[in-house]
Formats: sequence, C-alpha cells, structure tokens
Amino acid sequence: MPDAAALTRGTLDDLVASHRPLLDDALAALRERGYWSAFNESPSTKIWGESAPGDGKAAFEALLGKDFPITTPGASGAVAPERPPYGITLDVRYPHLQADGVDALMSAAAAGMPAWRDAGPLARAAVCIEILQRLNTCSFELAHAVMHTTGQGFVMAFQAGGAHALDRALEAVASGYAAMAAAPQTAPFSKPRGRGEPQRLVNTFVAVPRGVGLVVGCTTFPTWNSYPGLFATLVTGNPVVVKPHPHAVLPLALAVSTARSVLDEYGFDPNLVTLAVEEPDERLASALATHPDVRIVDFTGSTSYGKWLEENARQAVVFTEKSGVNAVVIDSTNDLPGLAANLAYSLALYSGQMCTTPQVILVPAGGFDAAAGHCSVDDFINALSVALDDLLGEPARATAILGAIVNDDVLARLDAANAGPNVVIASKIVEHKDFPGARVRTPAVVRLDASDTEAYGNECFGPVAFVVETRDTAHSLEVWRELTTTKGALTASVYSTSDDVIDRAADVALDCGVSVSFNLTGDVYVNQTSAFADFHGTGANPAANASLTDGAFVANRFRFVEFRRPA
Amino acid sequence: MPDAAALTRGTLDDLVASHRPLLDDALAALRERGYWSAFNESPSTKIWGESAPGDGKAAFEALLGKDFPITTPGASGAVAPERPPYGITLDVRYPHLQADGVDALMSAAAAGMPAWRDAGPLARAAVCIEILQRLNTCSFELAHAVMHTTGQGFVMAFQAGGAHALDRALEAVASGYAAMAAAPQTAPFSKPRGRGEPQRLVNTFVAVPRGVGLVVGCTTFPTWNSYPGLFATLVTGNPVVVKPHPHAVLPLALAVSTARSVLDEYGFDPNLVTLAVEEPDERLASALATHPDVRIVDFTGSTSYGKWLEENARQAVVFTEKSGVNAVVIDSTNDLPGLAANLAYSLALYSGQMCTTPQVILVPAGGFDAAAGHCSVDDFINALSVALDDLLGEPARATAILGAIVNDDVLARLDAANAGPNVVIASKIVEHKDFPGARVRTPAVVRLDASDTEAYGNECFGPVAFVVETRDTAHSLEVWRELTTTKGALTASVYSTSDDVIDRAADVALDCGVSVSFNLTGDVYVNQTSAFADFHGTGANPAANASLTDGAFVANRFRFVEFRRPA
Repeated sequence: MPDAAALTRGTLDDLVASHRPLLDDALAALRERGYWSAFNESPSTKIWGESAPGDGKAAFEALLGKDFPITTPGASGAVAPERPPYGITLDVRYPHLQADGVDALMSAAAAGMPAWRDAGPLARAAVCIEILQRLNTCSFELAHAVMHTTGQGFVMAFQAGGAHALDRALEAVASGYAAMAAAPQTAPFSKPRGRGEPQRLVNTFVAVPRGVGLVVGCTTFPTWNSYPGLFATLVTGNPVVVKPHPHAVLPLALAVSTARSVLDEYGFDPNLVTLAVEEPDERLASALATHPDVRIVDFTGSTSYGKWLEENARQAVVFTEKSGVNAVVIDSTNDLPGLAANLAYSLALYSGQMCTTPQVILVPAGGFDAAAGHCSVDDFINALSVALDDLLGEPARATAILGAIVNDDVLARLDAANAGPNVVIASKIVEHKDFPGARVRTPAVVRLDASDTEAYGNECFGPVAFVVETRDTAHSLEVWRELTTTKGALTASVYSTSDDVIDRAADVALDCGVSVSFNLTGDVYVNQTSAFADFHGTGANPAANASLTDGAFVANRFRFVEFRRPA
Repeated sequence: MPDAAALTRGTLDDLVASHRPLLDDALAALRERGYWSAFNESPSTKIWGESAPGDGKAAFEALLGKDFPITTPGASGAVAPERPPYGITLDVRYPHLQADGVDALMSAAAAGMPAWRDAGPLARAAVCIEILQRLNTCSFELAHAVMHTTGQGFVMAFQAGGAHALDRALEAVASGYAAMAAAPQTAPFSKPRGRGEPQRLVNTFVAVPRGVGLVVGCTTFPTWNSYPGLFATLVTGNPVVVKPHPHAVLPLALAVSTARSVLDEYGFDPNLVTLAVEEPDERLASALATHPDVRIVDFTGSTSYGKWLEENARQAVVFTEKSGVNAVVIDSTNDLPGLAANLAYSLALYSGQMCTTPQVILVPAGGFDAAAGHCSVDDFINALSVALDDLLGEPARATAILGAIVNDDVLARLDAANAGPNVVIASKIVEHKDFPGARVRTPAVVRLDASDTEAYGNECFGPVAFVVETRDTAHSLEVWRELTTTKGALTASVYSTSDDVIDRAADVALDCGVSVSFNLTGDVYVNQTSAFADFHGTGANPAANASLTDGAFVANRFRFVEFRRPA
C-alpha cells in the first residue's frame, strides 16, 4: 500500500477539481458506449516503471503471515480463512466478525452517513475516484493478492482484478453520479396565474442515502464483481460493509483499507467502508443481510444463496448475480479455425471458472456449413481439440491462461466429467513450474445428445463444456431458449453466416433476455466485456437480477428529498 | 369519447414526427424541474370552446346505465360495482374478471409484447403521447367520471383527474424514454491494441420489457395515481392490466378504452392495455399480482395491502404508495393569517381525502412568535377556525372545495372524531344544492397533547386534523421525526422565521426521507405538487417505496439486451 503520509493532502475542493475531468470523461463514455478505459490493463514496466513488479510483489509478501492492518467495529479475535489455490501459505489474519458483533458494526457504519450525505454527489464521486486511483497504484500488489486467492494467472489477475475492475468501479461511480445529477440542486419554480404575479418558489433537491449497503464477494472475482456494488452504494451516500468470500479476502481487504484511508484523509468517517470477515460456514452474510439497518445488498455467487437473499433480505433492495448455463449456437461459419480458436480460449481462460464461460455448445447432429465445406460434429470436435492443443500446448502459456483450480468442488466436477463415457476431449494435468502445489487442468469436453438435459442443463462451474447435438439450428435455438429462460445465462454466442438465422437468434435473445456475441473469431471473447461499452448481464433472465451498469443498478440506491421555499 | 373514425390516421412515423417536439420539451422540463405543463388545467370555455362543458357532460351521461364499450379477455358477465358519492346512479356495467379468467387475460396481454418491444422507445413514446392527447380532448367527460366516482368537486376533478394526471403521465413517458435512451441504439467499439489493427465491433442495445404490468388503482385519485405506473410500464415495452378500485372504475375505463383505440389504430394489439374489474372483496388484485406472468405492480392504497403486495408479489417489482401521517411543524411565522389560510385550504381540499393532506399540526404548548406578537395555541386554533370559516362560509364555494365524502369509513372516522371530547373546531354539514345525496362536511380539528400518540399517530384519512401541543420546537421536530420514521409521510410542512430552525428541520427531513414545504402562506399548498417540477413522495420512508417520477420509478421496468458483432 502507498504510504499515506506521502500522498497529497488536498482539500475536498481540490480533489473535486482534480477528478472532475475524469468523471466528465467517464460520463461521456457512458453516453457513447464505445471503448473507453481509465486504467491501463498492461503490466508492462514501460508503463509502471522497472521497479513496479518487484515492489508490488514485495508489498504483497510483506502482508503474509501477519495481522492485516485494519480494524472492524464489532469484531473480536482474528481469522485467517484463505486456502490459496497456488499452494503458497498466506496466513493473513483479519478481524473476525461474528453475529454478536453485527449490531456494533451497523452503528459504526451508519455514524458517518449524515456527513457523507451532506458532502454531496460531486464530492463523493471525487473521493471514490481518489480511492480508485490509489488502488490503481497498487495494481501489482493487488494482482498477487487476486492471483493467490482466486487461482487466476498473474496477467489475468492484473487485468481483471485491477484495471478492468477499476473501470467497472468507475462506471458505477459515474452511473451513480449521473442518476443523482438527473435533478438539479436548485430549480426556480414560476407558475403563471391568470391574474397577478406568478407563483414563485425555489426548490432544492438532495440525494439521500438508502442506508447501510452490504457487498457479498465471490471467490473467483473478488474485486471485479464487488467493486460495482461497493462504489455504486458509496457514491450515492451510503456506508458499505464488505463481506468477502472467506477464501478471497485479501484483495478486498486492500480495497477497503484504501477506501478507509482516503475517507479519513478527507475528513469522513473511515467506518463508511468496513470489512467483515468470517470463517467459512459461519453464515455471516445472512446475519448481515437481514439486519434491519442494511438497505442494499449486492451479491455474486451461487443461485441458491442468491435466491435466499432475494427471499429473505426483505428490508433491502437486493442485486444478485447468480449462475446460469451459457450457450453457444453454431449454425454455420466462414472461419472454422477462427471459431475454434476463439471458443478454445473462452473455455480455457481461468479454467472456465467464470460466470460468463460458455458451457453448452449446440451443434446440429448432421454438422454445419463451414467455408471449407461441410463440418461434421466429429470435424468440429477435432477442430476444437486442435485449437485447445495449440493454445495450451506450451506449459508456461497454459498455466498463464488456465490459472489454477480454485477449490475441491470444481476439481471434483471436472474429474467426474473426465471419467464419464462421453468425454471427447479429455482434461489434462499441467504442471506449474513456479507453484507445484497448484492444480492446473485443461478443459474437458463432453459430447451429448440434446435429450440429455440432465447432464448438460445445470451449471457445471469450471473447465467442463458440452457439445450438444441437436436436430438442426431451429432445434438449437429452441434448446438455447429453454435453457436461458429456465436456468438463465450471463452470455451467449451465435455463429452463422445467414442473416435469417442471425435475426431469429436475436429474437430468441430478446425474448429470453440475454445478450449475444455474433461470429466471434478473433480476440474478442464472449466471456469478456468492457466497462463503459458493454453491459454485464441483463437482469432479464434467472442468472442475475441486475446488470452492470444500467440505470436500475444505481437508481434505487438513493432517494431525492425536495425542499420548497417561497422565492 | 372522440369518434375514432374522425381521428387522423397517420403512420407511426408521422406520429413520431408529430409528438417528438412535445417529448423533447418534456425531457427538457425534467432536466430543469421548473414549472412546466403540457395540458391546460383550466376548464374555461375560452380554451375549450363554448360547447365543451355540455358535450362532455352529455358524453358522460350517455355512458350511464349501459355496458361500457370494452372487451376484456378472460372476463365473463358484467359488474357495476360503483357507489357514487354524489348520489346519482351510474350503473355502468363492465366486463367481470374473476380469478378463473386471469390466465386467459395474461396470455392475451402478453401476445402483443414482441411487436410493441420491436417498435422501439420513440414509437412507443409517441403512441403514449397520442393516448394522452386524446384523453385531454375528453377532459370534461373524464372530470364528470372522476367527480362521480371519487367525490371530488368538479373543478378539482377536472384538474387533478385531467391535466395534472396527464402531466404526471407524460412525466412518466418522458422519464421512461430517457432511461431507455441512456444507451445508444448502436455504438461502434474500437479497442486499440499494441500491435495491429484495433479490435472493432458494432454493438447494438435493445430495451426489452420486463413482462406484464399490473396497475392497482385507488378510489380517490383513479387517474392521477394510476397514470404514472400505467404509462411508465407501457412506454418501456410492457403490456398493462389496469385493475381499478371497484368504486372508481369509470375514469380508468375511459383511459384504457382510449389507449386500446390508439394502439389498434397504429397496428398494435389493443390487449396491450386491458381493464380488469371486480366486485369489492373478490381479491382480484391478489390473483393478478401473484400471477407468474406479472412482473411489475403499481399500487396506491392502504398500507396493509401495499405491504401484502410487497411481501407476496415476489415475482414482480412492486411500486407502492401507501399511507402516512403528514405533519406540520409550526415554530414561528411572520404571517399568521397567511399560514392559517394556507393550512385551512390544505385541510379542506377534497375533505382531506388526499394522501398528502396534513394530519398532525405540531405547535409548542406555550405558543409561538407571530409578526403581530405572541400566538398562543388558543390564538392559533382561533386563526385556523376563522380561516376555515372564510374559506367555507359560502356553500357553493364550500362544496366546490370540499367535494363529497367518498365512503362510509371516512364518514365514520369523522363522526367519531367530531363526537370526541377534544374537538376544538367541529365539523359541519354542508348541503349540496345540486346533489342532495352528497355527504359534504367541513374539517374537524382535535386538540391533543404530544403524549396522546395513540390518538393522532395513525393515519386518519379524511377531514380530521390534530393540533398537537409539544414542549417546544425541538420537541415538535422529535415527534415529527418519530412519526415519519415509523408511520411514513408523503408531505411535510414547516413554518419558521429562524434560519437555524429551518436548518434543523431540513436535517430531520433528510434523515427520515421526507420532502418539506417551508413557510407556505400563499396559494401553493403542501398537498399539491407539480409534475416535472416536484417529486411526489420520496420512497425513503414507510409511506411509499417509490417516487413520482425519479429514475428508480422507471429504470427497473425494462432491461437492455446487447448484441456484439465484428465490424
């Protein structure tokens, strides 16, 4: 972490003046939705300086085996719940929050709310941007923290856990600010009357917070999936309690710590952002989410717990990203190698441990037209197998792309699939030269008939994909529609050279509420989106009730109070 | 109703061209929040022509004693559930929807959704505006329908049921359109790469509907309180089922009928807007609200049923306006007669049968400073009494302002209060010269101590107000805070000449999430708001979970689906 004393200590006005241009750029980017990024995704030393990688690694290592320097109101004792997927020992100890400390945490969280509210949207946005910029300076340290909690490869951890997460955070800040700026601070009111002077008032509008927000993090993308809720809630005037997954605490501990420092430095209560850490299975999220003071919940994780929160956190507005069954529909292509390479990368990236990874690849049993001629299902599987070998044949590159298996559950599912009778591309073990304890595996591909819904029709999180044979493309579209409507999906991919098929696929997508990437054959992948350009999820199917970042993601986190005064 | 054949039958493009300027004006008005109205609130024949009042009355009378010309899928038989408060017989018969017809209604409602979605936001907004403009041409007919279902006086029915309701509807249309227009229809995506060409995509964004919307109307403001939900849901691409209160069907039957005509005329399925009428106590709203196809519910009415909907309509997003206890805090004034006259009008208007009418008037037991000197509680009550007499002394004017008592429950509460020991201004009976069957009453004012929370601290809908003595203004602010936090409030009013008190009151308002009018002594009243300028409700206290019309009221009624294609 940067030395707080070395940071510029400006006034809040200076901070606003300093960050307003970036806020304005972000607001413009949101309106245009072209590609735009405020943070650099490359870990190149040309950008960060020669010492940055080493300094970041040293900063990360300096945290290990110690009490993480943070206080949490209501906590007692310490926990070190992380189980690092690369096998190195973290043993970072965090304040332990248990159910009996929740009331104290809530009181502490709420104490700073009036002053934070009164600072107004622009000052809050500036403070949030300052937090993001300081997190950006810790990108290497954070990348190690993300890598060694999630199992992501280093570069992916640097990108998805750093710049991409910060872009999603800034997107949330800008979206929240835009929603609050939808009403002017002051508006003169003058209503003409038939006789005499107009009625004249001066009306003012104040964005008021909803109450304490809770962010429940996930184990695979602790920053990317938590920042949007965290910063949308914070910028709209609410305190935030961050409850990381017990296995992925460190990245969020760094984020919370940074937020607390900035808040404190600019005269706000650091307890506006707090860290709530538990041992696995202590059900702390449930105790927090149902507390009457918690008015906003953001969750990423399992469908079953997401549903539980939606059902039980009734006093709060609940934003969930759960799970789905993402499909690929292959009707025809003029670039089979490109298709196969693109799909192989999507299946391999982070061992398919993304909510956006394709799971079901729908292919007509009779094959499909490719530019080089007809492509049978066997041909297709062969092309995919070749593409996976090309991508993952070199171990160093393979480990960088695949990362490590995050936990035993994923490994068990993979092993089960791999041992089954229908495996057509077997998963292989890859040795990691730097981390012999890491469990690195290539994807398994299983071939099934469309009637085997039980086998492919539920989320199988991890590096397992199913090539599912259908009667024809119309049948593929039907299966896709049914899967998406009943199980949900965060992504979809369609390959076709036919405008008619594209149109029919678009209709299916609109009906069942899923976004689609068409004919991706280059290095844009269905499982990756860009903040400010792409929405993540739609909120329109069972995989999520929210979308990053549409108006609905921010509008309900605050309210307008109006004051009318005679002019 | 206007003759459909006589209406201009333009194409949808012509309609868009025709209504776009008004939409743009409405969008600008929303951003500025000054006074703006698209419809004329005056029933003057100078505006509407000499024949308009007579034509409107005749059109209204032509509906009486007949089957209302509308069809409702799933309905069987007819009902005439209205109990007119002015005593004239309506006996208008509507299609009777019972629980066993709900599935058929839902199927019919959803059938037109894809075409309505595919028309796009601008065409939908234009169709909605066309509906509003046609309703505007029926303003006299609608005013009679509102008057004879709600008990409002004619001019109020004309204004609140006509122009003001249409303005709130247009506000919802513009807000919904703005939310959908937040993403461009198409955006080029170009991400630079270190080597080679940028990644290029063309992304498109489509607003997709959430599903069938249900609007549950109330008995006192059938159009004003129903239009915002109806039009916010419709413009965002969803079908709408309108379930009026059984005692206030006719105004919404006219609105639904007009909407169906316009939809049909422009090639859309008229069943996108349907009318669902029941007998009292058939619990049709519950059957509709919990149907799996219903994804949006808008409700105005009792706290108990609003809470039931929030608890039970789990498959839908639920917008409720329930009830609260609206307070007035009197600390000091430099215009006691103005204060008294303003307050008297607010208590008298429509016999206090507004969710925005003040109920509790908090006054220091030792009195307060007025410009003319000290004002004791007795002095204040006397000033209020004089103001009520001035306002309501002339029977024709009194009946115009008071309207009629809407039902037996309100009358029973008034009679109980009036017979109590603490009445300081007794309610009087006013004879209505045109409608001898109408029950017209002046407000009753009851004097209590702040400790009598049981007596004043629950909603007492109707013409009963409580002058509540507190120790001092600080105590008044405490009582107000407690009432608003626990019971909710849709309005609040504060009188003070002290900047310090104003600031402290503003802090209370921000903490408990209620909007405040300060020092109203002219003809702006706390119980009236202007669309495009004022929010109605905040959604931040127990009286309502929604606000007319903030971003949260529209953002969650649709979702964006994105298509990515290589450029």
